[in-house]
Amino acid sequence: MPLVVQKFGGSSVADATSIKRVAKRIVETKEAGNDVVVVVSAMGDTTDELLDLAASVTAKPSERELDILLTAGERISMAILAMAITELGVTARSYTGQQAGVLTDAAHGKASIVGVVPERIARTIQEGGVAIVAGFQGVSENQDVTTLGRGGSDTTAVALAAALDADVCEIYTDVDGLFTADPRIVPTARQITSITSEETLEMAAHGAKILHLRAVEYARRYGVPIHVRSSFSSKVGTWISNDDDSQSEESSMEDPIIAGVAHDRSQGKITVKGVPDVPGAAARLFAVVAGAGANVDMIVQNVSSSATGLTDISFTLPEADGEATLAALRAAAGDLGYADLRYDDQIGKLSLVGAGMRSHPGVSAKLFGALFDAGINIEMISTSEIRISVVTRAEVLDDAVRAVHSAFDLDSSDSEAVVYGGTGR
Amino acid sequence: MPLVVQKFGGSSVADATSIKRVAKRIVETKEAGNDVVVVVSAMGDTTDELLDLAASVTAKPSERELDILLTAGERISMAILAMAITELGVTARSYTGQQAGVLTDAAHGKASIVGVVPERIARTIQEGGVAIVAGFQGVSENQDVTTLGRGGSDTTAVALAAALDADVCEIYTDVDGLFTADPRIVPTARQITSITSEETLEMAAHGAKILHLRAVEYARRYGVPIHVRSSFSSKVGTWISNDDDSQSEESSMEDPIIAGVAHDRSQGKITVKGVPDVPGAAARLFAVVAGAGANVDMIVQNVSSSATGLTDISFTLPEADGEATLAALRAAAGDLGYADLRYDDQIGKLSLVGAGMRSHPGVSAKLFGALFDAGINIEMISTSEIRISVVTRAEVLDDAVRAVHSAFDLDSSDSEAVVYGGTGR
Repeated sequence: MPLVVQKFGGSSVADATSIKRVAKRIVETKEAGNDVVVVVSAMGDTTDELLDLAASVTAKPSERELDILLTAGERISMAILAMAITELGVTARSYTGQQAGVLTDAAHGKASIVGVVPERIARTIQEGGVAIVAGFQGVSENQDVTTLGRGGSDTTAVALAAALDADVCEIYTDVDGLFTADPRIVPTARQITSITSEETLEMAAHGAKILHLRAVEYARRYGVPIHVRSSFSSKVGTWISNDDDSQSEESSMEDPIIAGVAHDRSQGKITVKGVPDVPGAAARLFAVVAGAGANVDMIVQNVSSSATGLTDISFTLPEADGEATLAALRAAAGDLGYADLRYDDQIGKLSLVGAGMRSHPGVSAKLFGALFDAGINIEMISTSEIRISVVTRAEVLDDAVRAVHSAFDLDSSDSEAVVYGGTGR
Repeated sequence: MPLVVQKFGGSSVADATSIKRVAKRIVETKEAGNDVVVVVSAMGDTTDELLDLAASVTAKPSERELDILLTAGERISMAILAMAITELGVTARSYTGQQAGVLTDAAHGKASIVGVVPERIARTIQEGGVAIVAGFQGVSENQDVTTLGRGGSDTTAVALAAALDADVCEIYTDVDGLFTADPRIVPTARQITSITSEETLEMAAHGAKILHLRAVEYARRYGVPIHVRSSFSSKVGTWISNDDDSQSEESSMEDPIIAGVAHDRSQGKITVKGVPDVPGAAARLFAVVAGAGANVDMIVQNVSSSATGLTDISFTLPEADGEATLAALRAAAGDLGYADLRYDDQIGKLSLVGAGMRSHPGVSAKLFGALFDAGINIEMISTSEIRISVVTRAEVLDDAVRAVHSAFDLDSSDSEAVVYGGTGR
């Protein structure tokens, strides 16, 4: 019998009515001849409410206690969902992360899964029941409750699917799947029917919010097929497949060159001016940046002026890391010997992603041409094998996304996707 | 260093303000030179809210799922309390029933503790921290979460105190301690400063609501001294001591004869009329009653009329068991061969409790005399070594309690207790 792992997020189980709808879908999947394992998040705003409660007694809660507290959320949703399924005449049993055998390291609040031993889940399936598992949580070696960080329920679902050798891991969300661009910016964005996990990773890493990065990495490593779909319809969503499968000769002939256009507004840019252009200067600079905990994305170094022997170095990083990084650089000013420091949080990043660009030359040229035609200036460029990213001014980012989306023929002739454009701009 | 186990109920941790107050008291106890282990219930109405949520998806929730659901309540309160204590500069760590080593049988919703292995609690104390433990919950042999039933947090506290060989188990409540009678009925009721666990058991079993019966039984079996006191003051409350201690020659000389007067309005009376007075008739009758799950309290059999060879049998039982028991008796009417069946839910029960009555004859006579003087008719009588119970009409029960309380010189000359009389009548 095929085994399906289904993951429902907080908005899918926000109240009793939603939970009953989800229960109905699970029972339908079961009655269609599948074994079903369900991973569920906390109901609606439960997590935020618990965080507020913690904030009312302390400004700096212990991470261990915060994990204990937050996992109460899934405990409630999983039990209520199991009851709702049982009410429909199908046996269902709920399991905490610990009971489901989700073993993690001890990094409270952002734990990594180190193993999954889902004995009780497997037994429940064998006995013909539906197993409901609390997402987002696990247990450390010393029997403490841990959480995987926000969005960790996706990772729980994929990890369980891998451990149980499931046929598919279905991630239910409030949209129909992944799109070639954010439909709020590009009303003609198309739903993607099939994408590789490598492309999905690049999209997610560069601003596409739909899936948790770690979940896709996990799926890629263990070869778990993911099906991202809507919890409000039974339409086919987006299949995220193993890279190897889709790179077989047969399929690569028909695959589109470009998967989609991602954008990211959450980055800032630091420019360090007048850095002595001597060996080791850049290494010292980025050692200071790394010491501040910043996750550097793109780096550009200007050609040195031979007259002064000085150069400028620019790099992007999450805005959240901006202050701390600037402070660390200022503290190390004497050691680094730079002339000036500038911070710019008005940048936008556009990333064109596609496994097909590996074997198709000219993609960069076409991208730069499209932006030139739209009158948009490029400030920084970085590339990987299957991605080209450019930094622009923040205020022209939306125009840039639309221009590139059109240039690569990603616009839908179908008007359906327009629904998602809504008033989101 | 003395070890104190403190138990705080839901009303003591109803909101952030209450939790901070409780945290302060715990820190004070710690700083006064004690090791402290805390057992906490769910915040305020959390349990009822979770029950409502369950009721919104099913009328008959699985008991296993209900236990998973309800234990989310203590998970929240214990984590928040640990945070609030840490905020005051004292290390605190919270533990679920499972983490605290509270092992139970698998009777979901009413599990019994089969063992307590509080290794992590002991380690936390050794390291100088305060351990917070979720009350009311444990884990069964097959790693399922169980609950001990309502009021089970008292039992958790006593069981932990026994396993850790604590010096005292403090049960915090919203009154100052145990009273010689319900102050809402007897405004002159006195706070009891010291009482034996045997007396407390009789009081609790016959209507005094302050402590969970099982907790007192547990404390008696393992010799745990309990101190029932107010979470709103630092006054000494009521000490419940080991029977052996207080029955030593020295103390028994000074002990009062009577501990207090309990009352119970929750019983009903079934009278089976015209039962054949032959050997085995009563046995057959009560086999039927037991089969209906009823917990029979008092039984009276009239003297048989030699003319008819028939007798009447009356017994009391919780009103909640009334319908099912009547149905079972009606179904067995042919077999039992009785003439008529009557049910009366307008009865009240008064119980006079005191270990001292063992060695003081005449207590019954004085009780019956007091009721006669007050013009109150006695319908049934039952006695144990340290208790006399009588059944009266429900509408005269309050008068009966006051008359007996006065007759045995239990009235306080102190006006303080009057506070508790309030408008409760």
